[in-house]
Amino acid sequence: MHPRFISSTLTGSARAVKAAVSHPRVPTMAFTTPTSRRLFHTSPWTLSVNAPEPVPEVVHSSSNPPMAFPCVDHLEQRTKKFLQSFDGGPEPSYSNPVSGYSLYHHNEPFLMDHGGILPKFEIAYESWGELNADKSNVILLHTGLSASSHAKSHPANLAPGWWEKFIGPGLAIDTNRFHVICTNVIGGCYGSTGPSSIDPKDNKPYATRFPIVTIFDMVRAQFEMLNSMGIKKLHASVGASMGGMQSLAAALLFKERIGKVVSISAAARSHPYSIALRFTQRQVLMADPNWNKGFYYDKVPPHSGMKLAREIATISYRSGPEWEQRFGRKRSQPMTTPSLCADFLIETYLDHQGERFCLQYDPNSLLYVSKAMDMFDLSASFSAETALRRARNTLRLQEGMGSSAPANAATPPEEQAAACPTGVAPPDQNVSNTSHDDPKFQLSDLKQGMSTIKDIPTLVLGIQSDILFPVWQQKEIADCLRETGNKSVTYYELDSMYGHDAFLLEVVNVGSAVKGHLELKE
Amino acid sequence: MHPRFISSTLTGSARAVKAAVSHPRVPTMAFTTPTSRRLFHTSPWTLSVNAPEPVPEVVHSSSNPPMAFPCVDHLEQRTKKFLQSFDGGPEPSYSNPVSGYSLYHHNEPFLMDHGGILPKFEIAYESWGELNADKSNVILLHTGLSASSHAKSHPANLAPGWWEKFIGPGLAIDTNRFHVICTNVIGGCYGSTGPSSIDPKDNKPYATRFPIVTIFDMVRAQFEMLNSMGIKKLHASVGASMGGMQSLAAALLFKERIGKVVSISAAARSHPYSIALRFTQRQVLMADPNWNKGFYYDKVPPHSGMKLAREIATISYRSGPEWEQRFGRKRSQPMTTPSLCADFLIETYLDHQGERFCLQYDPNSLLYVSKAMDMFDLSASFSAETALRRARNTLRLQEGMGSSAPANAATPPEEQAAACPTGVAPPDQNVSNTSHDDPKFQLSDLKQGMSTIKDIPTLVLGIQSDILFPVWQQKEIADCLRETGNKSVTYYELDSMYGHDAFLLEVVNVGSAVKGHLELKE
Repeated sequence: MHPRFISSTLTGSARAVKAAVSHPRVPTMAFTTPTSRRLFHTSPWTLSVNAPEPVPEVVHSSSNPPMAFPCVDHLEQRTKKFLQSFDGGPEPSYSNPVSGYSLYHHNEPFLMDHGGILPKFEIAYESWGELNADKSNVILLHTGLSASSHAKSHPANLAPGWWEKFIGPGLAIDTNRFHVICTNVIGGCYGSTGPSSIDPKDNKPYATRFPIVTIFDMVRAQFEMLNSMGIKKLHASVGASMGGMQSLAAALLFKERIGKVVSISAAARSHPYSIALRFTQRQVLMADPNWNKGFYYDKVPPHSGMKLAREIATISYRSGPEWEQRFGRKRSQPMTTPSLCADFLIETYLDHQGERFCLQYDPNSLLYVSKAMDMFDLSASFSAETALRRARNTLRLQEGMGSSAPANAATPPEEQAAACPTGVAPPDQNVSNTSHDDPKFQLSDLKQGMSTIKDIPTLVLGIQSDILFPVWQQKEIADCLRETGNKSVTYYELDSMYGHDAFLLEVVNVGSAVKGHLELKE
Repeated sequence: MHPRFISSTLTGSARAVKAAVSHPRVPTMAFTTPTSRRLFHTSPWTLSVNAPEPVPEVVHSSSNPPMAFPCVDHLEQRTKKFLQSFDGGPEPSYSNPVSGYSLYHHNEPFLMDHGGILPKFEIAYESWGELNADKSNVILLHTGLSASSHAKSHPANLAPGWWEKFIGPGLAIDTNRFHVICTNVIGGCYGSTGPSSIDPKDNKPYATRFPIVTIFDMVRAQFEMLNSMGIKKLHASVGASMGGMQSLAAALLFKERIGKVVSISAAARSHPYSIALRFTQRQVLMADPNWNKGFYYDKVPPHSGMKLAREIATISYRSGPEWEQRFGRKRSQPMTTPSLCADFLIETYLDHQGERFCLQYDPNSLLYVSKAMDMFDLSASFSAETALRRARNTLRLQEGMGSSAPANAATPPEEQAAACPTGVAPPDQNVSNTSHDDPKFQLSDLKQGMSTIKDIPTLVLGIQSDILFPVWQQKEIADCLRETGNKSVTYYELDSMYGHDAFLLEVVNVGSAVKGHLELKE
């Protein structure tokens, strides 16, 4: 049988169609890119396209015209603009999109958990509410990955903060009762020392010479700041997402100094699915040729890689049900033929999120801080190994051996073996470490690690639609705490459809739980 | 209070630590990249690193040594290898990793749903089991996004196929009973006409001059092939993932020619979350400078972008629980300090998946075929608009107006308005289309569209851990079919932890359901 051409779905109404197409019009449609204007002169039958530059000269002799890629042109244009700006123009800065913060200066060397060193560091912080006479009403608020210390507007910076509606008189964190302090983490780029900061040793940006930073490093640095302020004990350590990790880490490291803990959409240890989601973001960023192994501070920044990383991150921050309701299958320009650039509304939304973020946050900070989240683990064996490393490095500094933790260097096996004051055997490369692969061992290891927090009232809050920090991880935190004897664990699951971002959006549901926990007398 | 240096977690055993670190050793660790060997000469205190080239000369004067990025070096090395191979070497080919397939040649013009044209096309196909005398025992097996026609080994290609254990005597698709045909889709790169094929008009690869392709285009092309084979009616149309979309699309387009339908982990219409996941993959690929707007066939292919796209895809193909069990928090080299390249086992797994795929599949095919999935919709209004476009384009071809659908061109509003033979009003840019935004309207639109399939026994199979095609979408297919009066809908949910990939792995659970459905007399 010979193949037939006419589509078998060509059913009826051919006459109507013919009528509809028998009056050729010559509409003109303008399409604008940031720097050039392309005109598509169309007739119903043929279309000549002003082809983008890289398309070969065969355009008009092909069976179909080439597609336009305004999204690719846009990225190229931005790179060109950066190159032009270097002719005497200023280089891009990540360190000052936030203003009106205070600075804590730490002028002694600070050793990081993985052996790197900061000869000195700064922490940007902001605060709200009055500090009482005995300094006992302090709430330390920890941020998520990319947030600054600007959690709430104040006279020195009137812009709304990231928890604007949660902090204030009578609100979830009541500034009539509490003195709230929020910091930018070390490793970040909003005023605290991070990869974009200047290494005092050579007066050039650290870039990827910045040492690997952990959640525990961030918290230890915060407590150096609290020491300098004379704050001995916090009323509460509060945080969501990475901030929840910090909140728990603070309780583990400084149990005597924490009154209460709030952990929202966090984890007791990062699970492989969330590591995978962050890994792809880092890889996408590092694959941008402009990333240049982190040395881009006087060059074009990896804006394209950052945009893509944020698009991927955004998928993990929200939920399918929300997007189903908000965007459905709507297209941004329903009258046009489909495009490989942003086309459906959900795509333009992701594109917009990437655009907003790509020059707002330092790419190297993203790498370091997201890696810190991956490494987070409250298990006893992990804490023991870390404590030993810290002790070793402290001795090293005291003995004047100077820096430093090498990139990708091996820890000598003897030290790995010695790294277990709590009696938990460390992993051994040469011996099958079946015991460590056993989920039962891992869970009891985690419980042992978290037993430090057994006397601190803790609120654990999870969101059922959260993919990045799923509720089973919230339940794990709560269960571990309860099973180690913590009699004051409050555990709530919210049915919000906002996924991981719910902690920013659910003012009433999240806010009430936080307020109740902070203010209940126990 | 002055900041103190000693970590407050430095508890006990300092003497043991001191003893452990007082005997310096000089271990040597070798690290190999594909082309060079780097040696890290380590001592417990200092480490000199053979720095990668782009690192500035300040290496040894900084507070910490720079990190190594072997993953970035690896990508650069591969680009260099490609560049070297062009000095007389062959260009990379995607079209022949599969061998032993047959070719259907369609030598007449074929109009695509969005107005593009293929002057001719080819379909690669393979088959198993005997075709009976009246050609009534045919099962058309549709593939997922990146699969070839090689579903099962056979004498001309002994390599195991992607459904090796599902097809054969006595197996889920019993080759003692059925003649199974599997094709590579048009738009693909495993023998069927796609972007890497030669445009007969100028003898150069189509690249992104290939027309936008839809799931319905793929199916219409398959049925042209069936026509040529004299196969009037299929015993069943079977597929998973994108193959399930095709399976349903075939029933919608050719209801008289389909005996039964199997749809596994598919969708009646793509939802925004799955569109988002595919969008990021496309954007990552298109951001690779080597993609060059699709014109890379005689140049370095966008191997880096493809690798990243596959890493993202892999996250959507599996599930958290599987990775929790399989990888947990294990690191690939537990004795080394953390790295920003692949470090945890889950990361090396993703890296490996990306490596395997990045030169195996044509990047442009990924763009076109994944876009086809995004656009898929069985709603009545969508079918009506498509049918009108097809009719219009058919007339155009008959009248010798030639190609073609412009890239990103607008459909004249009059034709949009006329595009509704079933009485469903099309979206209008200038009028608030609230009715179309109403989920109730959308659901009834979908039911109306799927009512065509009401007489075809259909098996709908979903996986509870599937993120990409969640079970609620499987339930949507089953419910719509039932509510339009289909009395023979079988709906199963599997509790497999393999996520979307379960259809490739759950031989018994998926296989039994398929076998039962195909062989039950109704």
